[in-house]
Amino acid sequence: MLVVQKYGGSSLQDPDRIRRVAERVVRMHRGGHEVVIVCSAMGDTSDELIDLARQVSGDPPAREMDMLLTSGERVSNALMAMAIHDRGSSAQSLAGDQAGVFTDAAHGRARIVEVAPDRVREALDRGSIPLVAGFQGVNRETGDITTLGRGGSDVTAVALAAALKADVCEIYTDVDGVFSADPRVVRSARPLEAITYEEMLEMAATGAKVLMSRCVEYARRHHVDIRVRSSFTDHPGTLVSNSVGGSSAVEGSHITGVTHTRSVTRVTVEDVPVRPSATADVLDVVAAAGIPVDMFQKTGAQKAGAQKASAQHAGAENASSRTELTFTVSGEDGPRVAELLGEHRDRVGFGAVRCDGDVGQVSLVGAGVREPGIVARLCRTLAEAGIDVQLISASEIRLSALCRADELDAAVRALHSGFGLDSDTYATVHAGTGR
Amino acid sequence: MLVVQKYGGSSLQDPDRIRRVAERVVRMHRGGHEVVIVCSAMGDTSDELIDLARQVSGDPPAREMDMLLTSGERVSNALMAMAIHDRGSSAQSLAGDQAGVFTDAAHGRARIVEVAPDRVREALDRGSIPLVAGFQGVNRETGDITTLGRGGSDVTAVALAAALKADVCEIYTDVDGVFSADPRVVRSARPLEAITYEEMLEMAATGAKVLMSRCVEYARRHHVDIRVRSSFTDHPGTLVSNSVGGSSAVEGSHITGVTHTRSVTRVTVEDVPVRPSATADVLDVVAAAGIPVDMFQKTGAQKAGAQKASAQHAGAENASSRTELTFTVSGEDGPRVAELLGEHRDRVGFGAVRCDGDVGQVSLVGAGVREPGIVARLCRTLAEAGIDVQLISASEIRLSALCRADELDAAVRALHSGFGLDSDTYATVHAGTGR
Repeated sequence: MLVVQKYGGSSLQDPDRIRRVAERVVRMHRGGHEVVIVCSAMGDTSDELIDLARQVSGDPPAREMDMLLTSGERVSNALMAMAIHDRGSSAQSLAGDQAGVFTDAAHGRARIVEVAPDRVREALDRGSIPLVAGFQGVNRETGDITTLGRGGSDVTAVALAAALKADVCEIYTDVDGVFSADPRVVRSARPLEAITYEEMLEMAATGAKVLMSRCVEYARRHHVDIRVRSSFTDHPGTLVSNSVGGSSAVEGSHITGVTHTRSVTRVTVEDVPVRPSATADVLDVVAAAGIPVDMFQKTGAQKAGAQKASAQHAGAENASSRTELTFTVSGEDGPRVAELLGEHRDRVGFGAVRCDGDVGQVSLVGAGVREPGIVARLCRTLAEAGIDVQLISASEIRLSALCRADELDAAVRALHSGFGLDSDTYATVHAGTGR
Repeated sequence: MLVVQKYGGSSLQDPDRIRRVAERVVRMHRGGHEVVIVCSAMGDTSDELIDLARQVSGDPPAREMDMLLTSGERVSNALMAMAIHDRGSSAQSLAGDQAGVFTDAAHGRARIVEVAPDRVREALDRGSIPLVAGFQGVNRETGDITTLGRGGSDVTAVALAAALKADVCEIYTDVDGVFSADPRVVRSARPLEAITYEEMLEMAATGAKVLMSRCVEYARRHHVDIRVRSSFTDHPGTLVSNSVGGSSAVEGSHITGVTHTRSVTRVTVEDVPVRPSATADVLDVVAAAGIPVDMFQKTGAQKAGAQKASAQHAGAENASSRTELTFTVSGEDGPRVAELLGEHRDRVGFGAVRCDGDVGQVSLVGAGVREPGIVARLCRTLAEAGIDVQLISASEIRLSALCRADELDAAVRALHSGFGLDSDTYATVHAGTGR
């Protein structure tokens, strides 16, 4: 079996952890497998380098940031190669360019355009363990070193697995896999055995931080099986693949997990003109700035109760000829959206804009959300927990609800339990593993 | 003018110093010069990386040590590029391989085999400031990253200056140049205006640490003028070149400087057989281990005084048919030499071996040492200071004496003063510069 293993910064925080990972790698290798290792930078290295950059420059050029940051993965890779060597196996570390990771020229957020892992293959053929510095590549035209942006090391690992036709790409982290909910919020959350790319994409988009969408997209496009697992335990982790995870879905509900995100801003735009293009005009202001909108709702300006009363007043009919838009953006984009809408208010002709960052989003992910009655069940479950739902949106495999930020944890727990995802087994077995 | 400037670790210790160096670089560039920068790793970075390596491996492979250590220069170069950019000038950092520094495959102590600085030249032609990571190169055959060993960044700078036909290679350090003696020992020591390659080589070989022999050799072979100067002052420093430094030599004496080294072991081998090959046999033991011998002396077994007495004893004639060898090796090689000689004693057939590490070597460097009477003057000067000379050796441009370690500083001061090198000017002018 050919396995690409990627180890994140927390698995490589100090020399002691590096030695423990090396032991795991050597064990796998001695088991008769071909192993390729991708390392992130150690612990907080990247943050420390960014801090140094800020101390010498107010606006460091992206090209130089890439040269700076890529040193982190070179260090962790070389140290891991030494630690493997120290255990008697042969290992060679390769920088991104040496491993044939070619990217476009977009410094700081480069895209992989080609992977030509000749030297990786050669090392494998010699029976050695090649290590590839994650997160980095080289632009063939300029010869400049690039970085892949956030989650880049995962992308390196998946891209290598695709190019080498590896049997599996193991992503090692500090948790036992992809969980049915954030275990810090839901004590009875458990790692999923298997999950499809599509489900994983929705999980990632709605708050599961263990894998980023970009890496999952790459894996889906190139048919790479990913296994997310912990470098601190022997738990098998979660398989992310194409196969519809019969065993992963909880019997009867087909709901894979509950995700949540605290970083949400609800934007309400009042008195939007009724002309057909007005809604698009409002959303274009946000889209032009490259800010994605998640949940979206368009309503009459007056609430249902108010509309009944409007029959008595002709003037009220006039008021209801204008609409109200509500949508959500990520919390960090909130202030910018408010600013942009303020700038364009007169041109587009809408009324007051209200931004509320004191909200959270909870999502059910899984094929089961398409079943009839699921929205009602979600509302009932949350209502029984005393939680007020402000907004609901649904896609093919997820159902999201907006609620008050201080009710978010309760909402996650209510749905996890209400949709039958709770399990005592994992918590019992893994109590005291120090996760 | 095209200038290659090399900045050492102490000039780049923290972001503040990096910003100060950047200011100096930008000033030079704005003055209408083409500037190429070579940076060492920041402060103690290399030591910290070596420490990490030791924590993961008892015997780290040299290839991986090179991958690890070269990250240090990438960091300092990128930060310097940012700091220059922050001051409004254009700068691009290049790793050793990007700058076309090709070496042999001897990891940890690679030799430069070719410098093809196309990208450096391109950057200059664009009016930009190229920065090259010092100490590192790449082996063309294997594609592996190499390091040049101790003093490697100086070699990078000189090699680039040669390849680019630069007008001068400025080596920035934390002192004002090459001194007439170590200023920590001799308060009246002063930086030399100019010095020849040959003199600099002897200075380096006998204790001046500011430039290593290897870098000076490279400069001499490729006719590169080196200027050693401080990154903290505007002192012009010392020019190391081919021109016989008329102005550098102190009038009348032609002695350039006094150097010293505390790391010496005196080895005495007693009762060496008189057969012609015996001396060579002893020295071969040391040479075979790659250990260089500096001072050397062969004497009859009995001292001059004892030999007068020997006329009275026939048996003493027999004793004097065996000889005694005395030579010096560097202090760190002392224990190994003692061990080696012990192993080969029976085969070669010599007597007791005595090693004394409690000695120091003081040297006069300069063309003036060839003048008649100079050895006598050295002995008289040291005798007047109450210092006993144990061994003397002379080459074309240096004269070295071995003395007790605790008398070394006094010996250095006596010679510096006795050969007219003292100058109050520098000390007065530079008092309070905080050097």
